[in-house]
Amino acid sequence: MAAHPVSPLAPKSYPDLPEIDGVRFATAEAGIKYKNRTDVLLMAFAEGTVAAGVLTRSKCSSAAVDWCRANLPGGKARGLVVNSGNANAFTGIKGKESVQQTAEIAAKALGCSTDQIFLASTGVIGEPLDASKFAGVLDETATRMAATPWIDPAKAIMTTDTYPKLSGAVLEIDGVEVKINGIAKGSGMIAPDMATMLSFVVTDMPIAAEVLQALLVKHNQTSFNAITVDSDTSTSDTLLAFATGKARVEPILSLEDPRAEIFGQALSDVLFELAIHVVRDGEGATKQVSVHVEGAVSDQSAFRIAKAIADSPLVKTAIAGEDANWGRVVMAVGKAGEPADRDKLAIRFGDLVVARNGERADGYDEAATSAYMKGEELELTVSLDLGEGAATVYTCDLTHGYITINGDYRS
Amino acid sequence: MAAHPVSPLAPKSYPDLPEIDGVRFATAEAGIKYKNRTDVLLMAFAEGTVAAGVLTRSKCSSAAVDWCRANLPGGKARGLVVNSGNANAFTGIKGKESVQQTAEIAAKALGCSTDQIFLASTGVIGEPLDASKFAGVLDETATRMAATPWIDPAKAIMTTDTYPKLSGAVLEIDGVEVKINGIAKGSGMIAPDMATMLSFVVTDMPIAAEVLQALLVKHNQTSFNAITVDSDTSTSDTLLAFATGKARVEPILSLEDPRAEIFGQALSDVLFELAIHVVRDGEGATKQVSVHVEGAVSDQSAFRIAKAIADSPLVKTAIAGEDANWGRVVMAVGKAGEPADRDKLAIRFGDLVVARNGERADGYDEAATSAYMKGEELELTVSLDLGEGAATVYTCDLTHGYITINGDYRS
Repeated sequence: MAAHPVSPLAPKSYPDLPEIDGVRFATAEAGIKYKNRTDVLLMAFAEGTVAAGVLTRSKCSSAAVDWCRANLPGGKARGLVVNSGNANAFTGIKGKESVQQTAEIAAKALGCSTDQIFLASTGVIGEPLDASKFAGVLDETATRMAATPWIDPAKAIMTTDTYPKLSGAVLEIDGVEVKINGIAKGSGMIAPDMATMLSFVVTDMPIAAEVLQALLVKHNQTSFNAITVDSDTSTSDTLLAFATGKARVEPILSLEDPRAEIFGQALSDVLFELAIHVVRDGEGATKQVSVHVEGAVSDQSAFRIAKAIADSPLVKTAIAGEDANWGRVVMAVGKAGEPADRDKLAIRFGDLVVARNGERADGYDEAATSAYMKGEELELTVSLDLGEGAATVYTCDLTHGYITINGDYRS
Repeated sequence: MAAHPVSPLAPKSYPDLPEIDGVRFATAEAGIKYKNRTDVLLMAFAEGTVAAGVLTRSKCSSAAVDWCRANLPGGKARGLVVNSGNANAFTGIKGKESVQQTAEIAAKALGCSTDQIFLASTGVIGEPLDASKFAGVLDETATRMAATPWIDPAKAIMTTDTYPKLSGAVLEIDGVEVKINGIAKGSGMIAPDMATMLSFVVTDMPIAAEVLQALLVKHNQTSFNAITVDSDTSTSDTLLAFATGKARVEPILSLEDPRAEIFGQALSDVLFELAIHVVRDGEGATKQVSVHVEGAVSDQSAFRIAKAIADSPLVKTAIAGEDANWGRVVMAVGKAGEPADRDKLAIRFGDLVVARNGERADGYDEAATSAYMKGEELELTVSLDLGEGAATVYTCDLTHGYITINGDYRS
């Protein structure tokens, strides 16, 4: 794969995430596909760590996703192995064997049972993944485990990503500092309908697995599930959260615990920041776009309309061309199949009203709108004036870069 | 709008369609948006001509579509006015007035009532269309009506199309020659879910309006409704059929008439050829792709899966890169949300089996597959092995050309 230029929307610097008690990791170069870069991450969790996760709803999910789906109900985790370069998806019985073998190698290296090992693979779909490549690598990696720096695991899981994605939160609960660290990868094949691409979040918060799961599902909806790069849903979408429970506070055992709300908000912030990074590193992206829909008959209806706009190649190419082409926004509203009354529609770019009551707004200012479109972060709002439903979907523009990246990905 | 290079998939020559008794037309340069090309078509039908049509299901349909929807139940047509360069969509009350005014001008020029005038507009969405531009133009155009050449109307309705689209059929019914001529435009914003872009078909067959309507709806399903360029559904999709009844045969008054089947098949051939032209002139297209899905639980399920594959930007960019990336086909099957068993899936490119039983096929030949991908017309088949459902969707690849065309369409 050719190296692609770093996204112009990449951050100027990366957060220096703190250690989290009970979490250690190391990365390695297994040479699965890439040369001269790390492509394997081994992460170890202290005994007592609980796990939660949401996984792709793809009907063709990868072998690693199937593995996680089987282990999640146990709610316990001791290890995580992630490789990049090969998704081990659509690899049949060989894929299942490869996953089993990898879990056995990792369980042995970490001294735990295989049902406490979580796995994720990302990269090319359909190529068999040779698990024997992991054997020596994981054993060696297990001898180098450390608690920082977090940029290393963020880098090891990248595929077409042009920059590593990290986010963390430190909050105070019962006067004690509790930490949440998260990493993510993803750049194309991003439309995580009900799930997400690869992201891993760890915390030292003592929390019951069911509560962590409930919070993860809830906040995933407005973060990873609210982004789209290209409307294509991955076979490997995986978001896992691990809580070591090492922070010296009483555990959260129920959603009724008022601290669940506080912890959940911090978790939400981390998920949201990671999700936005995925959009900002969307393949070929030059602009970040927030699509707001308000006044819909329901939140779900608003979401579907926002998604139709954010998925529309014509809307996205117009944005790439810095063209406030709200006619294409109307088109996308029309194709969403949700209740909409053309003659009540209003559309704003930023604070600029471009259309009102189903036609170009009086006093529409083409020059001001064009100037607005030159920005890197754009807000696009559609008001339907039918009800109280609202939703936001985050996306990027569609440029030549996307075509270049995806026209030669395998070669 | 910049001129774009002619599609490499354009035909080497255009059919010289015959006169159809009862149909006359002329085109003109009204200067609505384009310079130095025709942008208005006026077509006149003999008294007794019946009309049928299918229109976009977009919730934000254009004023012209609304007009046709109101007139279609009457089943009678005397005139058709089409303009290119401005879609008169999302133009509010001004759009309705413009449509009314245009119909009045045309009705006066042709000596009929406005409810027998059909209208279609295509081009930019959201710009008010000044109907006064039509006044002198339509009167003058009406003085130059002729029965040929059909390439003139095909050219006048083009927008980003790089070549005019025509198709005709001549069939024998009761020993009499009956003719069907059709034209279409469309290149982007093509995903005519339940309807189509602009296409007009005329015939001299005597046929009841209800029968013509039933045949049109039926055959639209496997032609225009089975294509996608970019998954974006137009506000202006319109397919109209007009039958002058001038052929000297007994009219078809019911679908039970065995001649309805014969006539329907010829109509189907014309619609299908026009639809394929739209795909071959898809914005930026360099390859035509037929996506077949078989073994689905139902035809509808097969169609949804085929559509998900044909709409996938990752599948389409891979095809542009001549990469037999069947992993992306698996991804698209998985995201379709329809029943599919990963471990039963088989995928073929042409006759080359690339995947079987949910993994890469034994004896997969990368060299042969790569050679196949260099072709201009590709067949991609997914077998689900679940039932008898089958469907085909036609699409094109996604290239830099699409981005170039749509990044600067308005400017």
